[in-house]
Amino acid sequence: MTAQATKPTHPLLDQHAGVLDEIRQALAERSWFSRYPESPSPRVYGETAAADGLAAYEAHLNRPYAAELASGVTGTFVGSEVSPYGPTLGVSYPALDLDAALAAARAAVPAWRDAGPQVRAAVCVEIVDAINRRSFEVANAVMHTSGQPFVMSFQAGGPHAQERALEAVAAGLVEQERVPASVVWEKPGKDREGKPAPIRMQKDYRIVPRGVSLVIGCNTFPTWNAYPGIFASLVTGNPVVIKPHPRAVLPLAITVEAARGVLAAAGFDPALVQLAAEVDGQGLARTLAERDEVAIIDYTGGPAFGGWLEERGAALGKLVYTEKAGLNTVVVDSTDDLKGLLGNLAFSLTLYSGQMCTAPQNIYVPTGGVDTDEGHLSFDEFGERLGSAVSRLTGDDAKAVELLGATVNDQVRANAESLEAMAAEAEGRVLLQSRRIAHPVYAEAVVRAPGLVAVDVQREDVYTQECFGPVGFLIQTASTEQSLAQLADTVKEHGGMTASVYSTSEEVLEGAREAAATGGVALSENLTGQIFVNQTAAFSDFHGTGANPAANAAYTDSAFVANRFRVITARRHI
Amino acid sequence: MTAQATKPTHPLLDQHAGVLDEIRQALAERSWFSRYPESPSPRVYGETAAADGLAAYEAHLNRPYAAELASGVTGTFVGSEVSPYGPTLGVSYPALDLDAALAAARAAVPAWRDAGPQVRAAVCVEIVDAINRRSFEVANAVMHTSGQPFVMSFQAGGPHAQERALEAVAAGLVEQERVPASVVWEKPGKDREGKPAPIRMQKDYRIVPRGVSLVIGCNTFPTWNAYPGIFASLVTGNPVVIKPHPRAVLPLAITVEAARGVLAAAGFDPALVQLAAEVDGQGLARTLAERDEVAIIDYTGGPAFGGWLEERGAALGKLVYTEKAGLNTVVVDSTDDLKGLLGNLAFSLTLYSGQMCTAPQNIYVPTGGVDTDEGHLSFDEFGERLGSAVSRLTGDDAKAVELLGATVNDQVRANAESLEAMAAEAEGRVLLQSRRIAHPVYAEAVVRAPGLVAVDVQREDVYTQECFGPVGFLIQTASTEQSLAQLADTVKEHGGMTASVYSTSEEVLEGAREAAATGGVALSENLTGQIFVNQTAAFSDFHGTGANPAANAAYTDSAFVANRFRVITARRHI
Repeated sequence: MTAQATKPTHPLLDQHAGVLDEIRQALAERSWFSRYPESPSPRVYGETAAADGLAAYEAHLNRPYAAELASGVTGTFVGSEVSPYGPTLGVSYPALDLDAALAAARAAVPAWRDAGPQVRAAVCVEIVDAINRRSFEVANAVMHTSGQPFVMSFQAGGPHAQERALEAVAAGLVEQERVPASVVWEKPGKDREGKPAPIRMQKDYRIVPRGVSLVIGCNTFPTWNAYPGIFASLVTGNPVVIKPHPRAVLPLAITVEAARGVLAAAGFDPALVQLAAEVDGQGLARTLAERDEVAIIDYTGGPAFGGWLEERGAALGKLVYTEKAGLNTVVVDSTDDLKGLLGNLAFSLTLYSGQMCTAPQNIYVPTGGVDTDEGHLSFDEFGERLGSAVSRLTGDDAKAVELLGATVNDQVRANAESLEAMAAEAEGRVLLQSRRIAHPVYAEAVVRAPGLVAVDVQREDVYTQECFGPVGFLIQTASTEQSLAQLADTVKEHGGMTASVYSTSEEVLEGAREAAATGGVALSENLTGQIFVNQTAAFSDFHGTGANPAANAAYTDSAFVANRFRVITARRHI
Repeated sequence: MTAQATKPTHPLLDQHAGVLDEIRQALAERSWFSRYPESPSPRVYGETAAADGLAAYEAHLNRPYAAELASGVTGTFVGSEVSPYGPTLGVSYPALDLDAALAAARAAVPAWRDAGPQVRAAVCVEIVDAINRRSFEVANAVMHTSGQPFVMSFQAGGPHAQERALEAVAAGLVEQERVPASVVWEKPGKDREGKPAPIRMQKDYRIVPRGVSLVIGCNTFPTWNAYPGIFASLVTGNPVVIKPHPRAVLPLAITVEAARGVLAAAGFDPALVQLAAEVDGQGLARTLAERDEVAIIDYTGGPAFGGWLEERGAALGKLVYTEKAGLNTVVVDSTDDLKGLLGNLAFSLTLYSGQMCTAPQNIYVPTGGVDTDEGHLSFDEFGERLGSAVSRLTGDDAKAVELLGATVNDQVRANAESLEAMAAEAEGRVLLQSRRIAHPVYAEAVVRAPGLVAVDVQREDVYTQECFGPVGFLIQTASTEQSLAQLADTVKEHGGMTASVYSTSEEVLEGAREAAATGGVALSENLTGQIFVNQTAAFSDFHGTGANPAANAAYTDSAFVANRFRVITARRHI
């Protein structure tokens, strides 16, 4: 449907035209698509890739970042990252001169805007490809800022994040291509003698960006959660200022370096992508969010600041996309694969010590227990079996740390230590303590295996707040019917990023779909294999729904991209 | 791209499948499309249509509205409409029982949601068709609430509004169809022996509405400005509560009656469309906007309440689409058709006494004057010629009222009377007084022809506020370059719905396109015939851009519809 007034040209468009077709199609089909292998295997990325990436990471340490990361700086360098595994990173980053940096960002717009959607998309693909080549370097940076275990840092911080970036590029590209560049409008009409005399006009539709896009990163998934906003804004013509979490700067600094390098090589101003580093506690996100130049804000983080951004942003006429916090829910009714259920659920609880925005927290089990292929289990027996599965999965310290990673902050550590207190307060009981695990390499890392607390469904005061980290609640309900009602009600009120259900009954599964639709959360059913509720696949699974308080947007649907640009028409008679 | 799990069926879908194809295509092509003839000619709508419509209108007067307009009422009837032409309408409407009405709206959702986008779209087409059959009745109601002249009431209140409704239906339909109903996702994988063992999942994508949609109507275009929000929400599954302007209820009451009739006949709950009438000054819009049940708000009206809605709505997690106020701008540089220019511009100023949100207000003319096909005109000469054109167009009272209509409120009348005072304050001068015209039929109608005030470009204090009604400013600039800079700057800061330029220079036209893109406003170039800057064509011209403070949305782009529904995924292994 695109009627280009002039055909856009750029060497990168020639090079990546095929990729653009692939990602357009993948987005429309929502089926499986992958451009970047998720395996950190030397057979895939090369024999020296892992060592080279580690060396590149280590070369950043204990010095000012060596490449230019912004287009307006004060000359001061800031940075205070400490690895959750212990070591101080010692990297420092240029502090922004806000006026100069934002002026540079705006000055970079016209050429980028006029390049058109296809050229922008091709340049974005080239940027993501460049980031992909640095996946091992980024993985080490993600590991030592988020505390993720290495393989997860590689996968979620690398290829999976990169594919979320491509997905945003595809969504933004397709959205812009839905508006024709130019049409002839012909309205039938007659002249005074009754002869046909149509009114003809040419109408040109010009896509214009909104303004500077501010992307505010988080500590736990510095790249994965930032890339959709970055690339959705970039492909739609907006310059991007990336304000990383002060404890997770390096992964985004590498990203910014890669992006600026590609932009410059492609003939565009690197000021289109800039890093806004800050001294921890400086409140730079707030300052930037209130700047006139900033028109779009993407945020991942806590609900207090996210709520402020939504309200203040609206008052100032800015677009705000947020992902905040929620109650991820599992409803256990029955199963014909108990081992699969326990293994899958234990893994979901264990991975990165539950420090994923998608990790399960609230597990509803009926008081009458659970029918399984190994016989009927009472509520208590199910709790014991789940606890055992977690203990087995995390029993070997050396292996466990490869799943658990390190705890990212004091709040998570406090949560992990508060199980007895929570159980006492809630008149519940601790089914499984959160075990402290000694990391065989990093002695200072605080590694915690998941703990489980059994509580009664009445104690919403305990389980309807997000308890981030390695804590799960086994919630005793009167029935699966009540479990599903709680799924719907608590997610609708408090938000949720994921939900899952285990049942052999089609009726219960149908009820779970209704409850998920009412709560506004995506549902996974009977996961017993190698797909986990915490994980979503780019191009197919939406991340978040925008239908509950956990997030006002989803990666990546039309609503996430369609408002990042506007269309200005010019019409005239022909 | 739609993979329906089960093919939707409904008699109306069979009936209107062809129309849905037509409007899908028209939206994608953005070329000319019309379903409803704009001419009120008896040859088109039938010999008795005008008389029947008038009779139907008159049957509403001086009594409670005869049909059911809501699904939860108090038993009280409210209404205080007085025609800008003089007569009191005397219609009263049921007051809502908010709890009951909103509960009924929500209860109506599941069946409407589960009917699917295509069935909803077909039902919406049937509703718009039903409204179209009442176009003469609606036209009389629009005329006697807005003060529009009759032909405009018919066209803008009838077929043109109806086509904006269809456009919203098309946009919402297409947007939902972009999400497949169900896909099989297959990730390549190998088992332990290295044999291919893909992971296969079925993913079902369910479209869910957001919640109750509140549409807040305005006094001047009760149907035209309300229909896009109403139908965008309805086609995406949301029930709609329509809160009309207390002085322009009847056109929307007729709309609601038509919609509820079609919904009931189609087997759906009429509670999906309800009228929320109020006592003037009751503040029902504010009350409704803060209700938990309300998830979407569409608003046309003044900037103060619009700004409150945007901020408060964001704080409460609601979507808010607003159209407020702005400075519509004309830049005059040169022309090769002076008569055409003067005729077109005079008409744009005259139509409905400038009480269109799209009517020109600020006309920039360089101090050096204007080159034309009739020779060079000085600034003063151009002003005289424009004044004469307006005077000629409005010189015959009986003909003039058919263009001007009646002034809608005291503010407009005050503006029309303040030309001398404004000129004095601004050290400018009145080029043309706003002439009071006696209406040959309605003696009480206050009819005003446009007036013109010449001011210097420095006096932004005077011309950068919206002066709604029959007042134009001829603004003397140093050069066309300055005119274009003012276009960009004032619209960017204060908003604008329309802009137009007259020039024989391609360079100036290109500069105007840049200025319009910078200001974020659509541009019409060299309109000298039967297309006017105030008018936009559904399916082709966007109304508003969402890129300046006048409106945060446009009729109708993806951004206007894409967030009115959300997608809930359910996935499972197969």
